[in-house]
Amino acid sequence: MIGRLNHVAIAVPDLQAAAAQYRDTLGATVRPPQDEPDHGVTVVFIELPNTKIELLHPLGDDSPIKGFLEKNPSGGIHHMCYEVEDILAARGRLEAEGARVLGNGEPKIGAHGKPVLFLHPKDFNGCLIELEQI
Amino acid sequence: MIGRLNHVAIAVPDLQAAAAQYRDTLGATVRPPQDEPDHGVTVVFIELPNTKIELLHPLGDDSPIKGFLEKNPSGGIHHMCYEVEDILAARGRLEAEGARVLGNGEPKIGAHGKPVLFLHPKDFNGCLIELEQI
Repeated sequence: MIGRLNHVAIAVPDLQAAAAQYRDTLGATVRPPQDEPDHGVTVVFIELPNTKIELLHPLGDDSPIKGFLEKNPSGGIHHMCYEVEDILAARGRLEAEGARVLGNGEPKIGAHGKPVLFLHPKDFNGCLIELEQI
Repeated sequence: MIGRLNHVAIAVPDLQAAAAQYRDTLGATVRPPQDEPDHGVTVVFIELPNTKIELLHPLGDDSPIKGFLEKNPSGGIHHMCYEVEDILAARGRLEAEGARVLGNGEPKIGAHGKPVLFLHPKDFNGCLIELEQI
């Protein structure tokens, strides 16, 4: 069911410093910051040959990653995103297996403009998993 | 400098259950468990089309992930591994930029039989980063 690892998202306390570090110290291809006001984050994409890293920083007062950074002031891996072909079929299979979908269970339009769902970390070895329909 | 994301490693409290979940609930290609006594872990590789997930479980009493699972009993993302072409050149660049290499700074032979280094999480947004020479 799951396909490619679309991205790994890292919440960072200082977006400019983290972007500079990936560009200068790690020598990666780093895109300019993009504000995503609907998702409460500013994102910097790191383009690797086979996948992406998303550096996330809170945007606005009710950012979904604000609490994460309060608990993890140095930052940390926030979630990983697997691609699926059919998000409703994926949801059906997950729910049949007893896995919990976060929120009201309905796919939302994610930061890439595609339908996404998030799965409960306690059901997946402490990892917040995003599924994105490609 | 960094190339592909070679893998994301997830420490799991129950390797059999986690492997079954990736196979049955998430529908991924899951390889049989491999003991890596030199590294104190048993590993299950999840093969995605573009990268790998490594499920890690402690093997032996002084496993390097035992403490991580004590702090994170549900499991969690333990590290991510970027490929580099020349690990000594990579180390030189990192140290010149002030990033700390863990241990004595000398590459070790990692679980894939290739030279690896680990970087200090506090220098990289709370993420433990492994570099593997390919």
